[in-house]
Amino acid sequence: MAGPRYTALVESLPASVPFVGPEEQERARGAPFDARLGANENRFGPSPAAIEAMLDAAAEVWKYGDRASEDLRAALAAHHRVGRDNILVGEGIDGLLGNLVRLIVAPGDAVVTSMGAYPTFNYHVAGFGGVLHKLPYRDDHEDLRALFAAAAETGAKLVYLANPDNPMGTWLRGAEIVKALADLPEGCLLVLDEAYVEFAPEGTAAEIVPDDPRVIRMRTFSKAYALAGARIGYAIAHPDLIAAFDRVRNHFGVNRLAQAGALAALGDAGWLAHVRAEVARSRAEIARIAAKSGLSALPSAANFVAVDCGGDGALARRVVAELAARGVFVRMGLVVPQDRCIRISCGTVEDMRLFADDLPEALARARGGAGPGG
Amino acid sequence: MAGPRYTALVESLPASVPFVGPEEQERARGAPFDARLGANENRFGPSPAAIEAMLDAAAEVWKYGDRASEDLRAALAAHHRVGRDNILVGEGIDGLLGNLVRLIVAPGDAVVTSMGAYPTFNYHVAGFGGVLHKLPYRDDHEDLRALFAAAAETGAKLVYLANPDNPMGTWLRGAEIVKALADLPEGCLLVLDEAYVEFAPEGTAAEIVPDDPRVIRMRTFSKAYALAGARIGYAIAHPDLIAAFDRVRNHFGVNRLAQAGALAALGDAGWLAHVRAEVARSRAEIARIAAKSGLSALPSAANFVAVDCGGDGALARRVVAELAARGVFVRMGLVVPQDRCIRISCGTVEDMRLFADDLPEALARARGGAGPGG
Repeated sequence: MAGPRYTALVESLPASVPFVGPEEQERARGAPFDARLGANENRFGPSPAAIEAMLDAAAEVWKYGDRASEDLRAALAAHHRVGRDNILVGEGIDGLLGNLVRLIVAPGDAVVTSMGAYPTFNYHVAGFGGVLHKLPYRDDHEDLRALFAAAAETGAKLVYLANPDNPMGTWLRGAEIVKALADLPEGCLLVLDEAYVEFAPEGTAAEIVPDDPRVIRMRTFSKAYALAGARIGYAIAHPDLIAAFDRVRNHFGVNRLAQAGALAALGDAGWLAHVRAEVARSRAEIARIAAKSGLSALPSAANFVAVDCGGDGALARRVVAELAARGVFVRMGLVVPQDRCIRISCGTVEDMRLFADDLPEALARARGGAGPGG
Repeated sequence: MAGPRYTALVESLPASVPFVGPEEQERARGAPFDARLGANENRFGPSPAAIEAMLDAAAEVWKYGDRASEDLRAALAAHHRVGRDNILVGEGIDGLLGNLVRLIVAPGDAVVTSMGAYPTFNYHVAGFGGVLHKLPYRDDHEDLRALFAAAAETGAKLVYLANPDNPMGTWLRGAEIVKALADLPEGCLLVLDEAYVEFAPEGTAAEIVPDDPRVIRMRTFSKAYALAGARIGYAIAHPDLIAAFDRVRNHFGVNRLAQAGALAALGDAGWLAHVRAEVARSRAEIARIAAKSGLSALPSAANFVAVDCGGDGALARRVVAELAARGVFVRMGLVVPQDRCIRISCGTVEDMRLFADDLPEALARARGGAGPGG
């Protein structure tokens, strides 16, 4: 009996996945991690008001969520001082990126991004047959001018920029991005992923005119609002682009508890300030722990810090493995030379203590070149 | 300034949506519905254990969900006595259908379904450029033989069958479907949507060999388990087809609370029995209410009942509008002759009282042909 006939595009795709999650690693090692510092989750948790709202919503979980996420959409429009028709709520930035790529990228279409930037974006582009052009970072920053120049050269339909950047934590000033838009080629859309922007210094978020048809901004409740497990984010863009998502998106895909939780989280500015302060404290602590082992931490505008292990990717990979063997989950840069760094998410005092305790020996064994041990 | 360049396929798509949700209708009428009986939600609610599990999981909502939904997957494999690699957990059947269509349907590919069957499936097929061939119902049942014959004639890559059917509530015996598979053309995949099968008589679920490459079964926690707002369902199919989803799906798309809630719901067989009994009681009550107004209800194996209003689609549309004007949300069949029926979801004693109170006058006014009034 024959199986189904896949599309030619699907037949051509590798069976790769963008990330191996911590639970998969825990199953492989047969024990949970003691410190979960690899997925840039927000260890300080969501606003108690968000939890409360989700608990209330649980009583109505028999109902489908509102297709338009209208209450949240209205609150987001007020928050950003844009129109409601500038906002689309979706299943996290990953889901929004998938639909965006589907709207724009046909097989063979050019897309520009940075080498070692967000694998899930690349996964979506490959999944719709797009051709990725990847540019190196410049001094560990995404290279805005080079990205836009490459977009012009390749006739790209999309250019992806994360600000602050992941995995390096570096950032550009929003005004610099706005200024550079003059060089964005006609008909190329800038995907500005601001997942981490709430952790960044004032002036990092780009002040884009909401009806500018050249840019779509992506925001999430997974990071500063600590609702990663609820799967909810949003896009800000020209109303025509927002409306175009309705041609392809899963209309009832946003879950009801996430809608309620996000709305409450957005309303709790005090908790956001608390989280920002905790993240700043933890970033400094990661830098101190690194320095104690003679390593340097890169300045970060996100809820994680890239620490230069002072060697190549093979060394960093061994450090990551040694830390994992000791129960500390972190990740690392993906390409040369960013792969010299490990990336540690901000965490609690206890998380930081575990990282501080384990880093020296992990580093020593990694430098020794042996396999992971405890 | 130019906007983005959409794909030719996206440019060709209408801006239509599969369903207008009850919240949208409530915003339009300026008041909430008193009885929400139009979306086939499960008004009897989820197992208290599922609520409890979601409340517990809320404390860990800062974590992304497990990419594999492994705990739930293992429980589902045991429940259905299939391998774990026969199971894929996804964001409800809507999300799973979208990814399935993406795997199989390229522009111009033929797909077979019934006229007036699930609009969201049709939306996905159109969204990937597929060509839908729609067959009429036979005596208000999906016409299995005709569907398979049409698949052979058109060279279809997918044929969609809901059992029990929505919107009519009719059903086929599982053994009949298994037998008919001999006539499914080589290389055509049967999408067997069993969203409502837990409400159906014994023998309705098709006993498909789990590694049969010709069939993918779709199940959900939205109906019998009352977790519609949590957005979680699953597919059962050959391991190769299950694995193929990993090439396109949003890997971290299933939310953590849903994973926990679904696992607990699956484990509470007693609650499922309670829900089945309540649904059976409510089906009978809807039939009684219809009979009191001289209308006949179709036998149903789902958590809703189609009631023949005894006229054409225009009459049924007026009945739906009159009921909505009185605060009772129901839907109706989508094509001739199924559009002679309104479709009422099962509900509580209070829901049924509201429906019983309002139906006679709604019907009288609808027959009078006037616009909706109170």
